[in-house]
Amino acid sequence: MYKQKMIYFGGDYNPEQWDEETIRKDMELFKKAHVNLVVLPVFGWAKLEPEEGVYDFDWLCRIVDMLWENGIRVLMATPTTAQPAWMSKKYPEVLPVDIKGRKRTHGMRVFFCHNSKKYRERAAALAEEMASRFASHPALAGWHVANEYGTYCYCPTCQAKFREWLKKKYKTPEGLNEAWNLAFWGRQIYSFEEMELPTELNDDYRFYPPIQQDYLKFTTDSVIECFENEYRVLKKYTPDLPVMTNMSGYIKKLDQFELCKHLDVVGWDNYPWPFEDRSLAALKHDIMRGLKQGQSYWVTEQSPNQQNWQPYNVLKRPGEIRRLAYQGLAHGADTALFFQMRQSAAGQEKFHGAMISHAGHENTRIFREMTRMGEELEKLGDRLVGARTRSKVGLIFDWHNWWAVELCSGPSKDLQYLPQVQKYYKAFYEKNIPVDILRYDQDLSGYDLILTPCLYQMRGDLGERIKTYVKNGGTLLTSVFSGIARENDRVILGGYPGGLREVLGIWIEETDALPPHMNNRMRMVKGTGFPEEAYDCSMLYDLIHPEGAETLAVYEREFYAGMPCATVNAYGKGKAYYVGTDPEQSFIDALAERICGEAGLCPPIPAPEGVECTRRDTKDRSFYFIINHRQDPAKVSLPEGLACAFTGEPRQGEQELAAGDVWILEKKNQE
Amino acid sequence: MYKQKMIYFGGDYNPEQWDEETIRKDMELFKKAHVNLVVLPVFGWAKLEPEEGVYDFDWLCRIVDMLWENGIRVLMATPTTAQPAWMSKKYPEVLPVDIKGRKRTHGMRVFFCHNSKKYRERAAALAEEMASRFASHPALAGWHVANEYGTYCYCPTCQAKFREWLKKKYKTPEGLNEAWNLAFWGRQIYSFEEMELPTELNDDYRFYPPIQQDYLKFTTDSVIECFENEYRVLKKYTPDLPVMTNMSGYIKKLDQFELCKHLDVVGWDNYPWPFEDRSLAALKHDIMRGLKQGQSYWVTEQSPNQQNWQPYNVLKRPGEIRRLAYQGLAHGADTALFFQMRQSAAGQEKFHGAMISHAGHENTRIFREMTRMGEELEKLGDRLVGARTRSKVGLIFDWHNWWAVELCSGPSKDLQYLPQVQKYYKAFYEKNIPVDILRYDQDLSGYDLILTPCLYQMRGDLGERIKTYVKNGGTLLTSVFSGIARENDRVILGGYPGGLREVLGIWIEETDALPPHMNNRMRMVKGTGFPEEAYDCSMLYDLIHPEGAETLAVYEREFYAGMPCATVNAYGKGKAYYVGTDPEQSFIDALAERICGEAGLCPPIPAPEGVECTRRDTKDRSFYFIINHRQDPAKVSLPEGLACAFTGEPRQGEQELAAGDVWILEKKNQE
Amino acid sequence: MYKQKMIYFGGDYNPEQWDEETIRKDMELFKKAHVNLVVLPVFGWAKLEPEEGVYDFDWLCRIVDMLWENGIRVLMATPTTAQPAWMSKKYPEVLPVDIKGRKRTHGMRVFFCHNSKKYRERAAALAEEMASRFASHPALAGWHVANEYGTYCYCPTCQAKFREWLKKKYKTPEGLNEAWNLAFWGRQIYSFEEMELPTELNDDYRFYPPIQQDYLKFTTDSVIECFENEYRVLKKYTPDLPVMTNMSGYIKKLDQFELCKHLDVVGWDNYPWPFEDRSLAALKHDIMRGLKQGQSYWVTEQSPNQQNWQPYNVLKRPGEIRRLAYQGLAHGADTALFFQMRQSAAGQEKFHGAMISHAGHENTRIFREMTRMGEELEKLGDRLVGARTRSKVGLIFDWHNWWAVELCSGPSKDLQYLPQVQKYYKAFYEKNIPVDILRYDQDLSGYDLILTPCLYQMRGDLGERIKTYVKNGGTLLTSVFSGIARENDRVILGGYPGGLREVLGIWIEETDALPPHMNNRMRMVKGTGFPEEAYDCSMLYDLIHPEGAETLAVYEREFYAGMPCATVNAYGKGKAYYVGTDPEQSFIDALAERICGEAGLCPPIPAPEGVECTRRDTKDRSFYFIINHRQDPAKVSLPEGLACAFTGEPRQGEQELAAGDVWILEKKNQE
Repeated sequence: MYKQKMIYFGGDYNPEQWDEETIRKDMELFKKAHVNLVVLPVFGWAKLEPEEGVYDFDWLCRIVDMLWENGIRVLMATPTTAQPAWMSKKYPEVLPVDIKGRKRTHGMRVFFCHNSKKYRERAAALAEEMASRFASHPALAGWHVANEYGTYCYCPTCQAKFREWLKKKYKTPEGLNEAWNLAFWGRQIYSFEEMELPTELNDDYRFYPPIQQDYLKFTTDSVIECFENEYRVLKKYTPDLPVMTNMSGYIKKLDQFELCKHLDVVGWDNYPWPFEDRSLAALKHDIMRGLKQGQSYWVTEQSPNQQNWQPYNVLKRPGEIRRLAYQGLAHGADTALFFQMRQSAAGQEKFHGAMISHAGHENTRIFREMTRMGEELEKLGDRLVGARTRSKVGLIFDWHNWWAVELCSGPSKDLQYLPQVQKYYKAFYEKNIPVDILRYDQDLSGYDLILTPCLYQMRGDLGERIKTYVKNGGTLLTSVFSGIARENDRVILGGYPGGLREVLGIWIEETDALPPHMNNRMRMVKGTGFPEEAYDCSMLYDLIHPEGAETLAVYEREFYAGMPCATVNAYGKGKAYYVGTDPEQSFIDALAERICGEAGLCPPIPAPEGVECTRRDTKDRSFYFIINHRQDPAKVSLPEGLACAFTGEPRQGEQELAAGDVWILEKKNQE
Repeated sequence: MYKQKMIYFGGDYNPEQWDEETIRKDMELFKKAHVNLVVLPVFGWAKLEPEEGVYDFDWLCRIVDMLWENGIRVLMATPTTAQPAWMSKKYPEVLPVDIKGRKRTHGMRVFFCHNSKKYRERAAALAEEMASRFASHPALAGWHVANEYGTYCYCPTCQAKFREWLKKKYKTPEGLNEAWNLAFWGRQIYSFEEMELPTELNDDYRFYPPIQQDYLKFTTDSVIECFENEYRVLKKYTPDLPVMTNMSGYIKKLDQFELCKHLDVVGWDNYPWPFEDRSLAALKHDIMRGLKQGQSYWVTEQSPNQQNWQPYNVLKRPGEIRRLAYQGLAHGADTALFFQMRQSAAGQEKFHGAMISHAGHENTRIFREMTRMGEELEKLGDRLVGARTRSKVGLIFDWHNWWAVELCSGPSKDLQYLPQVQKYYKAFYEKNIPVDILRYDQDLSGYDLILTPCLYQMRGDLGERIKTYVKNGGTLLTSVFSGIARENDRVILGGYPGGLREVLGIWIEETDALPPHMNNRMRMVKGTGFPEEAYDCSMLYDLIHPEGAETLAVYEREFYAGMPCATVNAYGKGKAYYVGTDPEQSFIDALAERICGEAGLCPPIPAPEGVECTRRDTKDRSFYFIINHRQDPAKVSLPEGLACAFTGEPRQGEQELAAGDVWILEKKNQE
Repeated sequence: MYKQKMIYFGGDYNPEQWDEETIRKDMELFKKAHVNLVVLPVFGWAKLEPEEGVYDFDWLCRIVDMLWENGIRVLMATPTTAQPAWMSKKYPEVLPVDIKGRKRTHGMRVFFCHNSKKYRERAAALAEEMASRFASHPALAGWHVANEYGTYCYCPTCQAKFREWLKKKYKTPEGLNEAWNLAFWGRQIYSFEEMELPTELNDDYRFYPPIQQDYLKFTTDSVIECFENEYRVLKKYTPDLPVMTNMSGYIKKLDQFELCKHLDVVGWDNYPWPFEDRSLAALKHDIMRGLKQGQSYWVTEQSPNQQNWQPYNVLKRPGEIRRLAYQGLAHGADTALFFQMRQSAAGQEKFHGAMISHAGHENTRIFREMTRMGEELEKLGDRLVGARTRSKVGLIFDWHNWWAVELCSGPSKDLQYLPQVQKYYKAFYEKNIPVDILRYDQDLSGYDLILTPCLYQMRGDLGERIKTYVKNGGTLLTSVFSGIARENDRVILGGYPGGLREVLGIWIEETDALPPHMNNRMRMVKGTGFPEEAYDCSMLYDLIHPEGAETLAVYEREFYAGMPCATVNAYGKGKAYYVGTDPEQSFIDALAERICGEAGLCPPIPAPEGVECTRRDTKDRSFYFIINHRQDPAKVSLPEGLACAFTGEPRQGEQELAAGDVWILEKKNQE
């Protein structure tokens, strides 16, 4: 496999929108900014294939040559995210049917049926044409298939494939009736032909969770086929080059654990909202690192300045793009790629920020900030590439559970999976304790602590494996609305929290759900040593009967005042914590503090509040990332042997990191 | 006719979702809880008729036998609310077209075209099959046709039937043009074929009130035909057993006065929202009692615990389900039925409460509360069955008016019929003055007071009958936006309030409508004896010229300051009150107090605030229902001769009723 | 051309809804109220043409004769706004397809495809029939074609015509690709057949500005054809009578500058919202006067009392309709027409106010207020007709820019064109400085001040013409988000504000967009002489580098604190002001004050705050309109030679104008 020789710096470039003179000017500016890789031609299909089977690649060849003459590599995009208008016209099957049952017309992008045979045929042909032409081009750094997969389609092709998919999975109508509990509301089928896609036409997309959940799995599988359709072709020509796709930052729609099995490297587009808590971007980075079990990944897009599609498109503050890009490196990325190199003159995204703005020259704040990063990353060379993060905390994150939690009718409309995960993640993130994101079926044995916040659906033998894990000395922390259901959204009968009841040592008789203005208080049991006597809690309230567990806190109000709301259970050599409500953050922080103490978890380097600190290791080096998110300077005590990764200048002892500044420090390890 | 031998206690049960062992366990639990009736198989069609005309009834026969062996009766549901998937596939005409013009696909429930011939043919055939098998089964307590009728359909079948319906009603296009004032906006037709259903495709469902109003009447008639389609068959086999359907608690969509003419007994599903004012459930109960002019009715569903489909699915508080169920008995119900007996393991409603929860055993708070009720109701025997409420206050409630008020474009978007009715109802409810809900064409002569809040549309000769009623000594209380229009939403010209102008002795020149933050004040005329000098009022403001009426209050602000806003008119031997704005509740309470004094209206037993008290009488007994809605104990002075209806223990003189507790007291009357 | 002999007073009348007796009563009431013109039969098509080509005009002839016998003129409406139901049934092509892709069914009004051949054929035939019958009727005052054009249609006919329209404009697919920058998102076409209408089916109506903008131009052109289709016929019969249409008060949907080129006189329907700032109605009046470069226009509709379609349909306060109607005259209208003469008894608008209310007689507040106006206007005779407003301030207002600004994705969702224009307009309006509304291509040389608020898109050579204008001594005032793009929504590259950079002497590097709660402050540079030291500003924040301009104010907060946010640039003999943010009104007022001082702009008569004052001149007379919008009396110092235009009574020196009252004063000018 191709070895990445540098941290890739650059991003999306759309030369098809520009004249030769502008392109030549761009080459100069790229070099000034130390850009070493561009992604193209993401939206070039209509230009490359003006009519079916007739190709015009000259312009693209010229661009690629020109880039390489300037020392710039190309992450070559198969432009299959936007089929040409002639194709939609000639083969209407290519266009999707939406959830309202409407056949769409040509326009937009990512706007095709994933299961269309004609689309797949033409996409594979185009990939073949591109691969055969560029396979041996020295600029070629890898392949970027399509762009932000994610259309749902409900066309007759998809309907037929969904029925086949169900038949393959459930064998007989009886199997399906049983799996989905179709006796409910008299939904039994006697033939797979009777099963419709879940759309607005039957409301099953909202009102029948197991159907919708399987539809989402089916769509993930369809997207995988669609990706593989091009992957196969590209690998034939360039077996050693990485082939990937860039995933949308809105990560709910596809099961990315499944999809990423088929990618050589994970790629994602990082577009945090202004003012969002910085733990969310960190969590998403960690998810990306987890998708291939710790393998470093690529940030394929982020914005060098404002977006255009937000309600209020806030400018990136001075230093902000560097902080965000280096946060990516800190969590496991091996690139700092941006959308986009040059700002479009027209079209939907003309007010989206770019390295080269509408002004068209380098005398801008943003170009200077980009250039500084380009210089720094050039000095990093390939030393950081492939470095790994070592963590003793694992957090089980599951797309199927995400869908299931938010498909549930009841108990509370406010219950959402990602915010629940983020709250527990944040408690450790703020302490700079590294967290690995784990698939539901991954080995747990190497971890000191496993988090399973809001893990409503327990897939496979996860319940049993958690028991074994705790029995053998592990610590478990889980929270309200966990352990309740099995696959296909079937409740585990006999008493909540079903799959976790034994390990947690509790029985939950009922769960109250109150509107936001009616929150409750958790009163801490004396002697549990929490910093506060009581904490606010809201949304959901389990009525817990301990079955062996120790009570940490009880409710203050409502008819269940005095009943436990947080517990810990000694189980085998380990212990299992449960939080049966939605507490304020400071309770989770305090609980995390307690657990870190018990489990001996600590950060790579002690750092004051608001200073993020992570470590990545290669065979012979350690890299420390220290990011000051504060508005004022921060003092950090550095261990011996560290030096600035850019300049080699030693940095140790107590040091002051300027407001908003970032250090990447390096240490050679004795082998 | 079948005589009901007990207060039915039990509810919906879905054995088709469970294995034999679970069902056997359920029988034991039912007996423990004193369940005496279950409703089934509401969703069993697909299981009972696996293919057209082929029936599988064995499982159902076994269940019914097993229930009867355990002494439990069956309210047998024709499961025609959810046709099998094969039927939708084989006969697409069965599926409805929605208001957006979209043919729907199979899914959900109550999801068929009421006018589909094939649906009706198969529904009648199934009813026949069921009736022929179970007609003589000793467990059979009656028939429950379908479930919560209420789909609107806009398919070609409905289009054609609507045109026939119009032709039958209006005879000629000219008749229709005249009735609907189709000259407005140049809508005249020359053939019934030119009239389209009011949908989103022409916006007539929002923008042309008489069309939409007739469509709603047509739909009511279609539903009646659909019910009759099965009723006819069932009565053929079991002429003495009651046949009914359960109506949705959301009561606006069908004219229930019309529908209930065709039912043997009224059934409804009572799902109050958490925290809603208790007067609303009371009003709905009284509406149900009114639908068949005082005949006792059946509560067919209520929830033994939280719902699943609300935004926040609050647990029922301890004692709450008993309070709600007994409130039903207090207002005229002869059942306490619940949805559901056992909680589903999967599907849309798996988090809806049940007597037997996911835990699956009897050691739960809810099972204990249900069991207490079961024991108590068993002791009531059949003594309460059929008891009547006697009231001297009638409130005219009219579905056609409901539709008309809310179809009106202007004067205020905030004007809604039910809340206006509730405000006036509540003033009497809080005083424990019983109120009968009356059809617009019912005899008024037996009442001392008639309420017609917000009676915008005066159907038939109601205006004349009200005049006669007041002339003969009755009291009328009516309120803003009354008396304005005739049938077909035509304004009564010549001066508001048209049909009520003479009896009220006023002319309303204009009506102001202001946004919520701009409310006004009603200043009471000196000497009228109201407890406050002034009250807030809002939303609508009639500019009233008295034509004989006495002014009770005048506006304080706006250009109509000093003009009357509440009046009373002596008319014949009676008097007529008018409130020309939307006052705060305390004004209506004070006005009701005054009217009760004048008309000599008083409660069955004096009770403190927050304690509900009603009476129902049989030929030889009176039952007093005393419900303490307060959070603290309440003292009540009981008359002589009362005893606990469960235990026979005498209860008289000053007694203390615990917080949240309910008494049902009984008194034998000398005959 | 026909000379209008009086200020028209009256409005819409729908005799087709009434019987003969009512109509006879109406004639009396019209005379009592001094009505001199009615508009009819706006919705009479179905009655006039009961089947294709068969006409029934008798009823209409009788009405017109009866009106003329009573001395009332008719503005004859071709009732082509609402085709008969039989036509929609017989020729479904007449019905539109909506933006969701749905074929609509008959209903509503203004509910036909503008491009339908059959519609146009029948509309022209009807116009011919009407013209041939009424051409020589003495009552005929002009023609009112259809009503409030404005349906968008997306049917196959429109699709085909749009492609032709594009082909005519852009010649080749390459031309279109270039113009719309279709390389963006790979949208290139190779045939016009590949271009779809921008609908919800492709989301191009939101997501691809140049497509949507051209669709709006195309729709304007289609409406013009549709209007011309009847105009041509009518002019053939009555070449000297004015032919017009009434435009909807919601003025965004059609380019009214284009449409009004084809009208003989501009007509519009004035429906201000209750409580809206009075400057908005004034601005709209001035826009109407501007549409034909100062020619007086007709207010064709306004409400004599409450509307029915607002959320809260507030009554018009005493004196309010006179104030609103005379505000129209003050700004250039030659009519005071109302919707409607008699209130409908049924249908959607039955609660819309009318001169004759549901009470049906003249003893109402509204009838008295109308009568007062009728008397006054009768006394005005024809002396005011055609009078012109003279203004030294021009404001460039452009529909294409309106669409473009609000189609932009970014920078802020809160940016709307009309409110931005209104803020700058208001500053002059409140000072009673008359403002002319100008087309983008109108001559600027006669003005002392040109305003171009939020002029994002600079069409044609406007940029150059502004430069020349300022160079020659003019003053320019423009504001944030101006000068950025050319036609087809293409950004002018090289640095913002593109087309205005040189004349403003600034470069805008970036523009920040913050949510509402994060506003900033403008600190005034010392010595600039503004009344306050600082002002609030919000929404958008340009980061300005002066290139010659003088800084008037700088930001107080954010990383661009200290950078300029308001500037003025001396350019040639003139100066150019720029405001790079959205300031509070008081800053714009202060800036306007300064500019008025510099440019010597002053009102017709000095008047206190809250008193509106305008002047209109004929060849030999000046009319002064003085409107007291205050709740208390106002003192005004009148110049010599003025007299009440109604009574001839002299009015000069200091005079007191009652709260809410209006004067129209007249002065004969020496020639």
